[in-house]
Amino acid sequence: MNVELINTGSELMLGRVLNTHQQWLCRRLADLGYVVTRQVAVADTGHDIEQAVREALSRADLVITTGGLGPTSDDITRDLIAQLLDKKLHEDASIVQHIEKFFAARKRPMPASTLVQAQVPEGAIVLPNPNGTAPGLAMKVEAASFLSTLNPQPSTSPKWLVMLPGPPRELRPMFNDAVVPLLHRELPLDDEFVCRTLRTVGIGESQAADRIGKLLQPLIAQGMDLGYCAHIGAVDVRFAAKGPIATQLVSEAEAIVRNELNRHIFGEGDETLESVIVRLLTERSQTLALAESCTGGGIANRITNVPGASAVLLASLVTYANEAKQKFVGVRSETLATHGAVSEAVAKEMAAGARRETGEDYALSVTGIAGPGGGTEAKPVGTVFIGFASATETITIKQFNPFDRETFKNVTGTQALEILRRKILAIE
Amino acid sequence: MNVELINTGSELMLGRVLNTHQQWLCRRLADLGYVVTRQVAVADTGHDIEQAVREALSRADLVITTGGLGPTSDDITRDLIAQLLDKKLHEDASIVQHIEKFFAARKRPMPASTLVQAQVPEGAIVLPNPNGTAPGLAMKVEAASFLSTLNPQPSTSPKWLVMLPGPPRELRPMFNDAVVPLLHRELPLDDEFVCRTLRTVGIGESQAADRIGKLLQPLIAQGMDLGYCAHIGAVDVRFAAKGPIATQLVSEAEAIVRNELNRHIFGEGDETLESVIVRLLTERSQTLALAESCTGGGIANRITNVPGASAVLLASLVTYANEAKQKFVGVRSETLATHGAVSEAVAKEMAAGARRETGEDYALSVTGIAGPGGGTEAKPVGTVFIGFASATETITIKQFNPFDRETFKNVTGTQALEILRRKILAIE
Repeated sequence: MNVELINTGSELMLGRVLNTHQQWLCRRLADLGYVVTRQVAVADTGHDIEQAVREALSRADLVITTGGLGPTSDDITRDLIAQLLDKKLHEDASIVQHIEKFFAARKRPMPASTLVQAQVPEGAIVLPNPNGTAPGLAMKVEAASFLSTLNPQPSTSPKWLVMLPGPPRELRPMFNDAVVPLLHRELPLDDEFVCRTLRTVGIGESQAADRIGKLLQPLIAQGMDLGYCAHIGAVDVRFAAKGPIATQLVSEAEAIVRNELNRHIFGEGDETLESVIVRLLTERSQTLALAESCTGGGIANRITNVPGASAVLLASLVTYANEAKQKFVGVRSETLATHGAVSEAVAKEMAAGARRETGEDYALSVTGIAGPGGGTEAKPVGTVFIGFASATETITIKQFNPFDRETFKNVTGTQALEILRRKILAIE
Repeated sequence: MNVELINTGSELMLGRVLNTHQQWLCRRLADLGYVVTRQVAVADTGHDIEQAVREALSRADLVITTGGLGPTSDDITRDLIAQLLDKKLHEDASIVQHIEKFFAARKRPMPASTLVQAQVPEGAIVLPNPNGTAPGLAMKVEAASFLSTLNPQPSTSPKWLVMLPGPPRELRPMFNDAVVPLLHRELPLDDEFVCRTLRTVGIGESQAADRIGKLLQPLIAQGMDLGYCAHIGAVDVRFAAKGPIATQLVSEAEAIVRNELNRHIFGEGDETLESVIVRLLTERSQTLALAESCTGGGIANRITNVPGASAVLLASLVTYANEAKQKFVGVRSETLATHGAVSEAVAKEMAAGARRETGEDYALSVTGIAGPGGGTEAKPVGTVFIGFASATETITIKQFNPFDRETFKNVTGTQALEILRRKILAIE
């Protein structure tokens, strides 16, 4: 199964927006067993889109386009593809109705131009868009009409072309609700496909590979696919397998890796360290307070991205200045004078103080030097102390994260959250 | 000038990482007058990379690849390209020295495998990598050897192939320090190129277009390019022009847009609303405190991403729970009981309290319903009150941002920061 993705939009080529569709669609497709073999982005000019679609159809079994289905003059994907496939467009009454309702519900007048979105190429399946006005479209394409010079054997299996709208909050539900069933129905995989991703923290990619690579060799020999992906401060381990023993291979691999990497595994699939923390605290009816200096609200921001965070994070004190450390979490002026703001002693008093002042079950604190300025020989940029306080103990850990400012905040946040996760689960 | 970008890496095709190179390189290149016409991502398998490079060279004057230059077995770009162009590889003594120094400075043993990075194809220019071990490579390619079936006229101008390493903190300085001078020297633009981007907030894309589109028509008729790019809560307006009157066209356009959109323009180029706030406060030796409820540290996080933020943001109180609102910023229990936590009265007390408790010049507060839970008929998900306090006034503004949780936090943060920017500059 050959899958290609085409992202259209001049704003992509000018670098004014980040192409989040690529990651999202590639991830969803890979986890369903349809790995994207090529992704292309082109400007929304007729020639570039047409050439990209033509080339993709000559190679792939499934081509997905994003963008260019809206009502403005640069939304030309639908027209171009109808032309390319020699299909007439007709107005679809149910889409007209949907668009009229959409504007009526918002009490806004419906511009006439918007009805262009109700034009459907002959034979296309309409993918409903509950979150916007432009529907998606799916079309079966005769393989013989798009032969590749590189792969000139006429294939007998049909190809599919799926067009999705650009806005992520329209594209994502449409993919889940309409495209996934279409794939299962029209382009079923020959074999069963199973895939699982375990997410680890506190171990490097090569360390992880050293520890599990050899143990997994027999499963790899039987056809299992093993992949690593290193993120900032975290490494994903992904297994995938096809065929009748796919489930067995992946289960055995998971058991081996869980046993070997054990405490480093914080979650699986789409889980994040912060979503795991919110889940663990919610399950235990426990709460958390933060005292952040150098991460500047970054940890609180991550936790509050998780729905339901308000049940577990009741307060975070971003005490950037010394006076704020004294006033809000009770760090003593002597401690600051003797040890400096970036010190084990201050991290300890911040954690203990945050817990005391808020009355939460746990507190995390961070104080460090994010840079680019503020480093010294003794405490270079990247130096950070992380504090943890619970009813039974207050500890600190020193780390060195000599990265750019945002990476520093991110890595430090991950280290702090990982300390908390292990304390909650009493690991180590 | 035809520019194509090829991103290699199986982790891209599996959707395990976000392709930030595309945006960064496309943006830098477009602002230099070299708009990327096509971007492709492929897995790091021999066949896919070779096919992508071959196709790109058949069309483009400049091809840039990212990734695949490291020391591991899936880093195959260098070898493949040497083969494709029929160039021998030889070991470059200066790179060997650089790699040895790199490991020595970190007091780590140098694995033998790492020296593969010192292999250089015959005739290639080495682009130094002060931030890593894999150098970049640039090669002049005979145009005649890559004719396109689509564009079969032999071109006489040479093509360039530039290979950059994958890690952003290696790629970005290398592009700025080594690739930009190479472009100016080897692939100069025929004409002068001028480009400017003005960043606006508080006005929609179609509103902005309505107000400036007609006024700019005469300049567009003379060849100026006008583009809009809508972000969450902000719209960029970009002008670009080529040729002898390029500077004049862009300056006139800028004057017209500055006059017309005026208070909506918060910055230009790469400036962010938060970097402008930090600059404005620093220039005025003024300080800021925050009391964040529903944005959960998101505003503090944005401000503290800006180097130098510690001079202006001294404390942020993330008061998610009612008790925290009472304890840290002095919201009265009667106010909470009478109006509820999400109310104008609470936003006002939070802002005034944050300013009073910290002694800063300004305070911003936010309280609202981020969702997905917690909405009511009277206060649906997306409802938010933003407070602002200074020495002379305390005001609140109600907004409705019915988006997903992260978008809600982002839009609300932008609205709050924009209130502050206008107050600092006494706009309106």
